[in-house]
Amino acid sequence: MKSLVLWLCILCPVFGWTQDEDAEMLRKIHETTLSVGKSYDWLRELCVNYPGRLAGSEADLGASLYTLDVLNTLGLDTAYRQECQALYWKRGKVEQVFQVMKDGGLKPLNAVSLGRGGSTREQGITAEVIEVKSLDELSSLPGEKVAGKIVFFNRPMDPSFVNTFRAYGGAVDQRVYGPSRAQKKGAVAALVRSMTLRKDDNPHTGVTVFDENQPKIPAMALSTNDADMLSSSLSKGAVYVFINTNCTDEEAKPTYNVIGEIRGSEFPNEIILVGGHLDSWDIGQGAHDDGSGCVQSMEVLNILQKMAYVPKRTIRCVLFANEENGLAGGLQYAKISNEKGEFHLAALESDAGGFTPKGFSFEGDTSVFKTYYKQINQWSDFFNTYGLQFDMGGSGADISPLKSQKGLLIGLRPDSQKYFDYHHTKIDTIDAVHDRELKLGAAAMTSLVYFIDNYGLQPNP
Amino acid sequence: MKSLVLWLCILCPVFGWTQDEDAEMLRKIHETTLSVGKSYDWLRELCVNYPGRLAGSEADLGASLYTLDVLNTLGLDTAYRQECQALYWKRGKVEQVFQVMKDGGLKPLNAVSLGRGGSTREQGITAEVIEVKSLDELSSLPGEKVAGKIVFFNRPMDPSFVNTFRAYGGAVDQRVYGPSRAQKKGAVAALVRSMTLRKDDNPHTGVTVFDENQPKIPAMALSTNDADMLSSSLSKGAVYVFINTNCTDEEAKPTYNVIGEIRGSEFPNEIILVGGHLDSWDIGQGAHDDGSGCVQSMEVLNILQKMAYVPKRTIRCVLFANEENGLAGGLQYAKISNEKGEFHLAALESDAGGFTPKGFSFEGDTSVFKTYYKQINQWSDFFNTYGLQFDMGGSGADISPLKSQKGLLIGLRPDSQKYFDYHHTKIDTIDAVHDRELKLGAAAMTSLVYFIDNYGLQPNP
Repeated sequence: MKSLVLWLCILCPVFGWTQDEDAEMLRKIHETTLSVGKSYDWLRELCVNYPGRLAGSEADLGASLYTLDVLNTLGLDTAYRQECQALYWKRGKVEQVFQVMKDGGLKPLNAVSLGRGGSTREQGITAEVIEVKSLDELSSLPGEKVAGKIVFFNRPMDPSFVNTFRAYGGAVDQRVYGPSRAQKKGAVAALVRSMTLRKDDNPHTGVTVFDENQPKIPAMALSTNDADMLSSSLSKGAVYVFINTNCTDEEAKPTYNVIGEIRGSEFPNEIILVGGHLDSWDIGQGAHDDGSGCVQSMEVLNILQKMAYVPKRTIRCVLFANEENGLAGGLQYAKISNEKGEFHLAALESDAGGFTPKGFSFEGDTSVFKTYYKQINQWSDFFNTYGLQFDMGGSGADISPLKSQKGLLIGLRPDSQKYFDYHHTKIDTIDAVHDRELKLGAAAMTSLVYFIDNYGLQPNP
Repeated sequence: MKSLVLWLCILCPVFGWTQDEDAEMLRKIHETTLSVGKSYDWLRELCVNYPGRLAGSEADLGASLYTLDVLNTLGLDTAYRQECQALYWKRGKVEQVFQVMKDGGLKPLNAVSLGRGGSTREQGITAEVIEVKSLDELSSLPGEKVAGKIVFFNRPMDPSFVNTFRAYGGAVDQRVYGPSRAQKKGAVAALVRSMTLRKDDNPHTGVTVFDENQPKIPAMALSTNDADMLSSSLSKGAVYVFINTNCTDEEAKPTYNVIGEIRGSEFPNEIILVGGHLDSWDIGQGAHDDGSGCVQSMEVLNILQKMAYVPKRTIRCVLFANEENGLAGGLQYAKISNEKGEFHLAALESDAGGFTPKGFSFEGDTSVFKTYYKQINQWSDFFNTYGLQFDMGGSGADISPLKSQKGLLIGLRPDSQKYFDYHHTKIDTIDAVHDRELKLGAAAMTSLVYFIDNYGLQPNP
């Protein structure tokens, strides 16, 4: 079974840059990862023993110690934790949303508070609901229409995009900025349709952002089924909803980046980073988001060690702290790295789920990628054989503060179809991750690390 | 986000064959399928109302009427059923496998009879088990070691292959030929490790083949967990197993290919076929295998109609009968087609699950593909944009009898990682299929049909 892409190479010698040993290396990486990889076992431990790893929580701290223990079994040159401080927002014990029915009865709606959202305090609030489809629609409303109301943001993610992240990007402004905008217009609370393409009963949390010193209002996500139901009720007349939630903002707490590395044998000062983030939202196990990225990054080191590969450059795994609601880990890591005068030749983040990998996305908004793309293109045929494509696009939030070091920033791009079925919900659990799909992601990452390590990055001729 | 593959095209004008209208057509096909496609709804009906569609069964007949009804709603030029006769093997009500413990107790093992396997009749049998890892190992054993025993084939699928179909191909000879070979050496029954990479309690059925007039012995699949357990018991000493199963071979029954088509406006005699098989094993709903391929093929016609596309060539959807244990549908279809003097320019089968599509496999063992590959290569960039790759390999069992017409035979290639988790089990149900992944397969098929229809197939210059 000869791939057409390889045929193309044969027919087109200028790009027909093949080396048997590279192909053999990729074959061995995949074979080793699928046969003796440990990432799924690690992920199960992480999910079952340390679920809901909100930065600074007990689970988060336990997870940092557990993953450090695992890294210490891999025979690395060094493994340690790096402390940073994260703001600590805490979900309360009460999270209630009820539609008040015509007869005075209360119909429960599936809802969760958004991260960093406000509280109703003890008594709860009841108010009339107004539905909007966008921030612009809210802006266009006269203030008196909004004052004292609950604003319900209900624009669905667009199912017609193949890439679900694009659909997410087109809807998530409602969750991130909606509650703050609603408060500024006098609303007493905000409800947001969950960020998913599925119709189901699982509400999806995620961060919402208020301005510094802005008073916070309660902000909750509704399941898509209940959002549709509420919208349907609103089409028939006035609807009142009762909300009771008691989230709190607490003092900053310590949290940790977990770091392990194999020092480079020839160019130890050229660092190739692989990473994910260890924290997760509090309501699930954080299996896809982003336990998967963490164990895949650990697996890269594991597989290289299992294959007795001696890297020329330093290969470093970083499990970042506090991606979900602050980015304290990524910022602290880049700060310390810059202070030490380090140089990250490349940084590769896995933070889009543990699904079958489809390729890599190279950050194209700096000149870095454009400087090297001819060489990287030459590698792509090897990856195509494994169904992996190279594209330009984003990389990852945690590695974005490294941009100033002018290394290559890369994101692993798994199949995106199911990601938002689980994202930020209570069903993002170990059962939702497939052993082989997860490991194939780790094998893809290891393969790219191998090419960058072995050839370095050479500017276009 | 510009794909590197497109960059390659720009740099390499000989293959930089881009046309805006083709790209726009593919975009519209994907958008339409994801937005208003019906395939998942149809699959739910098929699975829930007509599960276990063994060819000739009530469920199979009901499914042929249901799908014909659906085709009749699509405004096609014609839709009809085509009768054929299928041998009818029937699973009995009793399917018991017990390990006989040292204290005489019976430990139940998770097992199902293999399709077309034999029966113990009423009383059941108890015999000692011998484990082998291959047909060759069985051949090498002296006859007296096998006579009167139960042969247990226990070579696992190899997890190190990325493509799980390759792992399946490397192990399935045990299921297909093992029981017959065991009978020839005097065994009284055969047990076969289930064909899956998972460790679980679900036994996987599938066809086993005896020679004509060869006496059949009971042949059953064990779940992988129980196969491992049994192997472990065997490593400690002699093991006896009790088997009771009462399968029967009955008279041939009528079953039906279901056919619908849009007649070509310019070249009606050039047929482009899309198909799957309507029958399934009896123990599950046949959701991935192959309800998915059927509803995707119907969706191709639906989407073309929704887009008011007027095909130049005849686009025909065929839901084949009896793929699982006889291929009567595919053989009958090709026979009648040949009698009519028809010509299938291309035939595309979807029979590898309803997972995210990764591309197409073109049958390369005839001269047909080699005659056209330069043109087909020119199309591949459009497909790469959707993560779809072109490879050479097999196509599909049902369309294989069309080979003599010397058209292009093609298989849809979905992600293979999970297929053998469900294949031929009771858990191959609608819940195991993802709405969007299924529809993306249909969109990929529609896209390829569009290119073949619009450009025909031109021999290499």
